[in-house]
Amino acid sequence: MRIDGRRPEQPRQTRVQPGILETAEGSALIEAGNTKVICSATVENRVPTFLRGTGRGWVTAEYGMLPRSTSTRTPRLGAQGRPSGRTFEIQRLIGRSLRTAVDMEKLGERTITVDCDVMQADGGTRTASITGGWVAMACAITQLLKFNVIAASPLRHYVAAISVGVVDGVPMLDLCYEEDSRADVDMNVVMTSAGEFVELQASAEGDTFDREQFDAQLRLAQKGIEGLIAAQRDLVTL
Amino acid sequence: MRIDGRRPEQPRQTRVQPGILETAEGSALIEAGNTKVICSATVENRVPTFLRGTGRGWVTAEYGMLPRSTSTRTPRLGAQGRPSGRTFEIQRLIGRSLRTAVDMEKLGERTITVDCDVMQADGGTRTASITGGWVAMACAITQLLKFNVIAASPLRHYVAAISVGVVDGVPMLDLCYEEDSRADVDMNVVMTSAGEFVELQASAEGDTFDREQFDAQLRLAQKGIEGLIAAQRDLVTL
Amino acid sequence: MRIDGRRPEQPRQTRVQPGILETAEGSALIEAGNTKVICSATVENRVPTFLRGTGRGWVTAEYGMLPRSTSTRTPRLGAQGRPSGRTFEIQRLIGRSLRTAVDMEKLGERTITVDCDVMQADGGTRTASITGGWVAMACAITQLLKFNVIAASPLRHYVAAISVGVVDGVPMLDLCYEEDSRADVDMNVVMTSAGEFVELQASAEGDTFDREQFDAQLRLAQKGIEGLIAAQRDLVTL
Amino acid sequence: MRIDGRRPEQPRQTRVQPGILETAEGSALIEAGNTKVICSATVENRVPTFLRGTGRGWVTAEYGMLPRSTSTRTPRLGAQGRPSGRTFEIQRLIGRSLRTAVDMEKLGERTITVDCDVMQADGGTRTASITGGWVAMACAITQLLKFNVIAASPLRHYVAAISVGVVDGVPMLDLCYEEDSRADVDMNVVMTSAGEFVELQASAEGDTFDREQFDAQLRLAQKGIEGLIAAQRDLVTL
Amino acid sequence: MRIDGRRPEQPRQTRVQPGILETAEGSALIEAGNTKVICSATVENRVPTFLRGTGRGWVTAEYGMLPRSTSTRTPRLGAQGRPSGRTFEIQRLIGRSLRTAVDMEKLGERTITVDCDVMQADGGTRTASITGGWVAMACAITQLLKFNVIAASPLRHYVAAISVGVVDGVPMLDLCYEEDSRADVDMNVVMTSAGEFVELQASAEGDTFDREQFDAQLRLAQKGIEGLIAAQRDLVTL
Amino acid sequence: MRIDGRRPEQPRQTRVQPGILETAEGSALIEAGNTKVICSATVENRVPTFLRGTGRGWVTAEYGMLPRSTSTRTPRLGAQGRPSGRTFEIQRLIGRSLRTAVDMEKLGERTITVDCDVMQADGGTRTASITGGWVAMACAITQLLKFNVIAASPLRHYVAAISVGVVDGVPMLDLCYEEDSRADVDMNVVMTSAGEFVELQASAEGDTFDREQFDAQLRLAQKGIEGLIAAQRDLVTL
Repeated sequence: MRIDGRRPEQPRQTRVQPGILETAEGSALIEAGNTKVICSATVENRVPTFLRGTGRGWVTAEYGMLPRSTSTRTPRLGAQGRPSGRTFEIQRLIGRSLRTAVDMEKLGERTITVDCDVMQADGGTRTASITGGWVAMACAITQLLKFNVIAASPLRHYVAAISVGVVDGVPMLDLCYEEDSRADVDMNVVMTSAGEFVELQASAEGDTFDREQFDAQLRLAQKGIEGLIAAQRDLVTL
Repeated sequence: MRIDGRRPEQPRQTRVQPGILETAEGSALIEAGNTKVICSATVENRVPTFLRGTGRGWVTAEYGMLPRSTSTRTPRLGAQGRPSGRTFEIQRLIGRSLRTAVDMEKLGERTITVDCDVMQADGGTRTASITGGWVAMACAITQLLKFNVIAASPLRHYVAAISVGVVDGVPMLDLCYEEDSRADVDMNVVMTSAGEFVELQASAEGDTFDREQFDAQLRLAQKGIEGLIAAQRDLVTL
Repeated sequence: MRIDGRRPEQPRQTRVQPGILETAEGSALIEAGNTKVICSATVENRVPTFLRGTGRGWVTAEYGMLPRSTSTRTPRLGAQGRPSGRTFEIQRLIGRSLRTAVDMEKLGERTITVDCDVMQADGGTRTASITGGWVAMACAITQLLKFNVIAASPLRHYVAAISVGVVDGVPMLDLCYEEDSRADVDMNVVMTSAGEFVELQASAEGDTFDREQFDAQLRLAQKGIEGLIAAQRDLVTL
Repeated sequence: MRIDGRRPEQPRQTRVQPGILETAEGSALIEAGNTKVICSATVENRVPTFLRGTGRGWVTAEYGMLPRSTSTRTPRLGAQGRPSGRTFEIQRLIGRSLRTAVDMEKLGERTITVDCDVMQADGGTRTASITGGWVAMACAITQLLKFNVIAASPLRHYVAAISVGVVDGVPMLDLCYEEDSRADVDMNVVMTSAGEFVELQASAEGDTFDREQFDAQLRLAQKGIEGLIAAQRDLVTL
Repeated sequence: MRIDGRRPEQPRQTRVQPGILETAEGSALIEAGNTKVICSATVENRVPTFLRGTGRGWVTAEYGMLPRSTSTRTPRLGAQGRPSGRTFEIQRLIGRSLRTAVDMEKLGERTITVDCDVMQADGGTRTASITGGWVAMACAITQLLKFNVIAASPLRHYVAAISVGVVDGVPMLDLCYEEDSRADVDMNVVMTSAGEFVELQASAEGDTFDREQFDAQLRLAQKGIEGLIAAQRDLVTL
Repeated sequence: MRIDGRRPEQPRQTRVQPGILETAEGSALIEAGNTKVICSATVENRVPTFLRGTGRGWVTAEYGMLPRSTSTRTPRLGAQGRPSGRTFEIQRLIGRSLRTAVDMEKLGERTITVDCDVMQADGGTRTASITGGWVAMACAITQLLKFNVIAASPLRHYVAAISVGVVDGVPMLDLCYEEDSRADVDMNVVMTSAGEFVELQASAEGDTFDREQFDAQLRLAQKGIEGLIAAQRDLVTL
């Protein structure tokens, strides 16, 4: 029995509410247990320098935490002058994960920026950002299709992510903050609706891990992601 | 008739939802029309250098906008390295306004930091931050009393704020963004439940203004603030 | 009787000396009691992005304090990496105030930058910067007319500013530093030679204030500004 | 046949030269093909705040590239004001990897900082930094033992790292820059001399990947790391 | 005949006005031709870390230029985020030069910070800062003696500085801006009242220079500095 | 006898190894005693704004120290956000010194950036950077000639630099770190193969110095530079 009453292989209750911001092309609020992330997607008619004139688009992501998303206050970025290393690591992960979902030729010379702002943090904010960010991006693409900005959908597949960890020797799915801070191995898995991997990051926090442990964790993650993609299918049809 | 169907003296529908963050000592979501601000209050056992050893507390505020709170994306603070001048101006205004509501001796050597993060911006974000920030602060103080951290409430009065402007020669209460960008005079008023002023800022954006216009605007603001304080009374008893 | 021997309604001795810098298009040294501010005006053939191609000009201001303008040394901006919130607040106020004095179509696509550098600070540096900055700007405009860069003067009216405060319950005009640090209410008023208001900012520092107090302070300010505009008239003819 | 004549499963020629800096407690120059990284290890009698008084030590890493380590010049960090996101991601990976090699209780309240400065970059700089950084750290620990600063070696095992990628559908070991920029999947693996995993990061750059491909890559990586650890054994005895 | 009518060996008219700031322990305005620098000296009861507990003091300097000290506006430091390389070079020169004038044991554990702010720049601002900065520092020391903070004067000698350059093949003393920008060799000399050197910096701007040219320039500089020290003697008695 | 066994007029063993980086147009490793500096030269087809359209080129330099080039670790630039004042001073000196060696018309509208990165520091890093940087620059120019990018060599002469100091009253050539930190006078001299001066900087660190001492130091420097230029001649023919 886990700290919040779940079984080891049981993910948290996850809800995704699309369209929460009238100001953005696409948006979604994702809640995974007590973790809440506001995701928005912005479409702009420009691409990074290395893509100009290629006819291809780009997807990028930014990640932030509201000062009181954590149980003690975290100073906001602007006060320190720059995002932390952890922030950079997370936003690069989200960006890479969402890029694989998009056919850049069909998107054309446009950039989609997905902003993931954590309202409340209880573990798994980076994986929730990927799952929710995909929905915000899909909403924005729906708008582009609706207004005939693009002719065909550049969405190639659904993309969702979940964490797995080994706590007190037991592999557990979708860690909350308290579990995460006690885990020996921390693993984040990003997969597509075709059952393929996008990112697979496993880190030994305390003890190192062997192949068998790794395989057990991976099985949990695959199962969890299938559930998240089912939820995405309920909201968006490709 | 105004752009959103209101009469000149009619404020926007305003709702304040306290306790929206489990992670913070106090919190509130304020919605004034389409403007939505997440307010949180943090209590810390430290004061700025100039207050150490005086037995007196401090209240300060920070203000931010989520990148897609606006209809085109605003780069987040950390990317530019520092908050803008406008941000500084706003957070100083919020801080000064909320400080007058607190008896610093009763608070003791503690700092309350009120974070106001704009989720969606449609004009009047600084006044909504003051009105909502007061509620978040009051919730945090309720916690301090409940856990006997302090003996008596340091709250001296309710504090709320509203904007007024002159648009096409007509004084209007509680401007939305479109009205604000066309206003000749822009005024922000902060008042207490005792009917006294805390801050009064009137700026000529285009044309200058005379005493008579000023007095007409002030009457609208006083009326609007009475309504907001009535809403605060429904949520918090002093 | 006030700390420096003045009566409550008596402003400080104010002198404005135009043309103190040979290097600038316009300049002035303003002395209000012990407060001394070096003002300069720079004219450049460029405008901010949002004005390009409109045929309209812009006026902006920057404000700084020399390290020993204060009785203990204030670190210079570059050492901390950025101006303080107070600096931003002040330079935005100066900029807005001076913009109302200029017909931007007559100025054409030019930017006037008014720099206000405080040599010695004894209260009222922001209002002295507005009054002296207007003179520096007017000198620069005189140069533009003299060299036929523009055909008609874009100056619409004189603009001057003064502070008022309530000290020990008594409304007083043009506070010196010692009075300012003890004031319950701090008010800055900016007016034109037409008797209209440009900016009106009143802040409760300790106690809040009622309408009657506010009106009394406003009367003092109006009187004080009339005197300052008379001094400007002696130096510059519109 | 690969671009530099190697077979798919063949790593680059790797040489590690310890003790290249007289100024540092430990140092090593690692050359993997044309990639050259200067590694140094610094021991300081301080730990981060969260470890003070616990009797436990810490290991951290920093990573940089000399401006002409790349075939076009990369501006140095100080000129832009801050390290890039990629730099943060890499130095966090190196730090986590080296921490697992150290028994923090045996190290005591000391911090080992491993600096990895790339002199010449031709792919695999992060994995070379881990392999070479381990040697620099081991040299520094040898010094601590020699001067009786610590009683027993805190080194728990050897740690080395290598990259694998899928280029034109073929899994290849230890990618050079040209291969890396064309790879569909990019994988970095960090392992110990006990055959356990420390970090395992696989990213789809273009196409996603399935379980079978992942397993094939992992086998290549394990083989490559065994060779690197053999080289470490020749230099340092645990 | 030079551009401003001087003979090659003739320095500019130089005036030093001490005590121009009521707020500072010591101050002086130095005017050398059209170059005007406001110098102030601050005494604080602290020393840099490396001097704590040694009983010895420190002298340091900062240098800045007002935005319109130059004929086109120079952005102020805070706007760019940091002082330029030239600024660092100059303030280090001023600091080293003034330190040689002070017996640090007699000063005791105090820091004197000399701020040199250029109001108007027409060449030779760094040498004027040294000459004027010495006077500001001497005024501050006079205060320390007057209030018995220190028992004996730590001033060891007068220090002054001047520039020399080779313009169109002719060595000239005390260059104005126009001469400076055309000079082939630029030399700054700092000397004491004992006729000894403190700093001697000669830079080839275009053509290199030989020993004979160097000696001729040095003679001019020595002569010029004697005049400046005579002016310092009129203001301050050691 | 000096600390490292040298006679006062004896320079350190100096070796320059050109071509150490395959990635750069020109490069050299210079070792002067225990001081080791990696120099690289980058050629780019752009010039600073003030040279555009003039047909003339530019030479600039950057200088850095690896964190463990010193016997205690120096934080890297990016961590503090900006280079120190000392760094700016040094890179400006290197840039000015190397510019005199180049005929900018023959170079054409190109910029040569010389990066000097100190691997190990034992005094004299700025002078070693000039001597080694000249070799890296000469290698890059050889490439430009070889590939017919330019028709004739823009190199006008060899340039080398050395330090001299007065330690315990004795003038000594080419100070190591321990001598440098005890020196009363610190002097850096940059000269050409034509026996002319490029830069001459003498600073009193403790005691001031007279003309006779200065002349004695200068004689030592001239002798030392002749030896360094002889070494450059062995590597590069003009």
